[in-house]
Amino acid sequence: MNIQAPNFLSALSALQAIEDGSLSSEALVRACLERIAERDAAVQAFAHLDPDRAIRLAQEIDKGRGGGALRGLPFAAKDILDSADLPTAYGSSIYAGHRPGADAACIAMAREAGAVLLGKTATCEFATLTPCATRHPLDPSRTPGGSSSGSAAAVADGMVPVAFGSQTGASIIRPAAYCGVVGYKPSYGLINSSGLKHVSPSLDTIGVFTRTVADARYVVFGAAPEPALHAPRIAVCESGQWDSARPETVEALRAFTRGLERGGARVSTRRLPANLEAAAAMQIRLSAFEARHSLAHERMRYPDRLSPRLRERVDLEAGMSMAEYADLRRSMQAAQRDAENLFDDADVLLYPAADGEAEVGMETGSPRFGALWTFLHLPALSIPIGRGPAGLPLGAQLIGAPGRDLELLAAARFAEGLAIRD
Amino acid sequence: MNIQAPNFLSALSALQAIEDGSLSSEALVRACLERIAERDAAVQAFAHLDPDRAIRLAQEIDKGRGGGALRGLPFAAKDILDSADLPTAYGSSIYAGHRPGADAACIAMAREAGAVLLGKTATCEFATLTPCATRHPLDPSRTPGGSSSGSAAAVADGMVPVAFGSQTGASIIRPAAYCGVVGYKPSYGLINSSGLKHVSPSLDTIGVFTRTVADARYVVFGAAPEPALHAPRIAVCESGQWDSARPETVEALRAFTRGLERGGARVSTRRLPANLEAAAAMQIRLSAFEARHSLAHERMRYPDRLSPRLRERVDLEAGMSMAEYADLRRSMQAAQRDAENLFDDADVLLYPAADGEAEVGMETGSPRFGALWTFLHLPALSIPIGRGPAGLPLGAQLIGAPGRDLELLAAARFAEGLAIRD
Repeated sequence: MNIQAPNFLSALSALQAIEDGSLSSEALVRACLERIAERDAAVQAFAHLDPDRAIRLAQEIDKGRGGGALRGLPFAAKDILDSADLPTAYGSSIYAGHRPGADAACIAMAREAGAVLLGKTATCEFATLTPCATRHPLDPSRTPGGSSSGSAAAVADGMVPVAFGSQTGASIIRPAAYCGVVGYKPSYGLINSSGLKHVSPSLDTIGVFTRTVADARYVVFGAAPEPALHAPRIAVCESGQWDSARPETVEALRAFTRGLERGGARVSTRRLPANLEAAAAMQIRLSAFEARHSLAHERMRYPDRLSPRLRERVDLEAGMSMAEYADLRRSMQAAQRDAENLFDDADVLLYPAADGEAEVGMETGSPRFGALWTFLHLPALSIPIGRGPAGLPLGAQLIGAPGRDLELLAAARFAEGLAIRD
Repeated sequence: MNIQAPNFLSALSALQAIEDGSLSSEALVRACLERIAERDAAVQAFAHLDPDRAIRLAQEIDKGRGGGALRGLPFAAKDILDSADLPTAYGSSIYAGHRPGADAACIAMAREAGAVLLGKTATCEFATLTPCATRHPLDPSRTPGGSSSGSAAAVADGMVPVAFGSQTGASIIRPAAYCGVVGYKPSYGLINSSGLKHVSPSLDTIGVFTRTVADARYVVFGAAPEPALHAPRIAVCESGQWDSARPETVEALRAFTRGLERGGARVSTRRLPANLEAAAAMQIRLSAFEARHSLAHERMRYPDRLSPRLRERVDLEAGMSMAEYADLRRSMQAAQRDAENLFDDADVLLYPAADGEAEVGMETGSPRFGALWTFLHLPALSIPIGRGPAGLPLGAQLIGAPGRDLELLAAARFAEGLAIRD
């Protein structure tokens, strides 16, 4: 494959080329669509695509109509996000052909900035656990991870430079690690969630998949000044969860850590306190209780069209009372407060992004390495740090202090330059 | 009017009557519908109503099909909440006749518990400032308050015992005070917001209008045990905002406070710290920035169908960068943390619910007395405490500690018994 083709450019390079006139939005969109035409029968990253419409929108941009910071840039959006002129099915047969009344806020804002919505990417059923058809771009016998399966695969496979995803447990971090791309889950609520089909409103967080950290930063923050961070303080966060990381993950993280130290980072180690480690169990209870409410309509009207595992999940906390739920919410807030102490002498934490390489089969893998940080509302980001025994990508997760997304992104830029990437 | 008619019963009394067989759901629904038929040409509380469907649903409940804690109880929902089998227009001509794919979570959960959705109540445009047609039930020359105008008016006028509303500034507390009913805005996120058309996802909070505190408690928490609170500690929270309260409000709150003391409450006074008083200005900036994103689709596609004041609002913070927004979110979280200190030696705070009586004209009144507490994510509740010079209701607002909704409701039950009600 020709990785110098426009569809493999980073978002910032593509925007620069459009800006200086060496590339048109139409040419870029066509290159992406050709890649999709060539590859998507195997990868199945897209749930809905309307090539003619995307080309027409790009032509309008090229004619100078509208556009701002993302002028001419193609993007995709996970099919859990509403779109007014493309169907939105939330990964469920219940919503086949559904046409929402409005674009989700993140889609509309990207369009206002001049980006071209190429298509909607496949998602696990209601962004939970039951897989969609998407395959790993490098090995069709394997999962790309989930639930933002199509978004991760599309960016990894050169189909689109940017795709929105969402995370309730590890639905951005894990597929980014599996597919070898950057996955950025911002602080809870930073990207406006209007038009996201919620499954757990207290946890659901919109984020982006890109090929570089700089792209993720630019798509979310535009040209904001970068915080000075010459020698980031990176704390390797140890916990019992590391026992579930495969040897190649642990070894790759060790090598990455050595690279960070050689590169000038101040690396330390800290143990995740027991009360925070226990909070991961609260994420499961909270998300199950909220899914029962968020999907109450579908649960009652279409019980036979929910997958068995989703039916099981929405019934998991059927016995929890609202008073118990209120208690659980207070515990969540207390844990979020406690988590601040993790950053007393660290800018970011380093943690596994997934157990190991993408697994054989379509099961999307355990969310264990992402769920706690989602529950704590902390910004997190996965970057590729090498390959495992099957030749597939491994990721490292960096986690930022509460609301310190720009500092996380600065540390991730630093770290990205020191990671082994293929 | 016959206030012993079934449509004037409290929710708990109606449920008891249905349970013991002295009232059928159908009879109750018909009584509500008759009241609506008689009165709604003047009040205009309902945006969408389907009487035959409601009667049919009540008949099914009476036949014993399904139902739980709210078996047979009619309710209404603000038309900012999605409903699958009644139109949902969000108070905007853009969405005339719109049919969402699913019921909002709170509607679906109420239905699962056996409640009968009577209709959708009128809302200000996208639950913001531009009034809908609803009139004050006691004086058609006056506003019922907003943005949950129809929900407050319908409960006050005997059209329905319970109605869901939502609050981003003071959209539950103010209309409840104006209309002389109980308005309960829970802690942020307690009632699942799935299916709410968001205008400011970090603030939008679903709540309920009822005729008694016990009803509000039951609808949200069911039969949860009530915290023991024999002599609640109530702190009158003083602030510069009191200068905007009219003399009748200040006098009514003074009389109410004396009643609370006589009733055994331990009443103290505390000054709102300056940094928290200043946080009210952050609520305005945050909600304007988020509205710009949440309504991006409507803003771009239908600019001429937004009211001038909504267009102004969504442009108010057009210059705020995402980095500034991230800063603002951190300031919000810091203010939320500081607010905990307000409850060091108080169970609840006492504060005005509105400037005074409902004003002449259709302007819905200032949100000033609600906006800060919404921004702080604290649970709040308005109860009627008497009448003003025009003979219209005045309300008192009680504010609970973070996540302490059941304690707030217990204190409000205590206080309600000591308030002058007509």
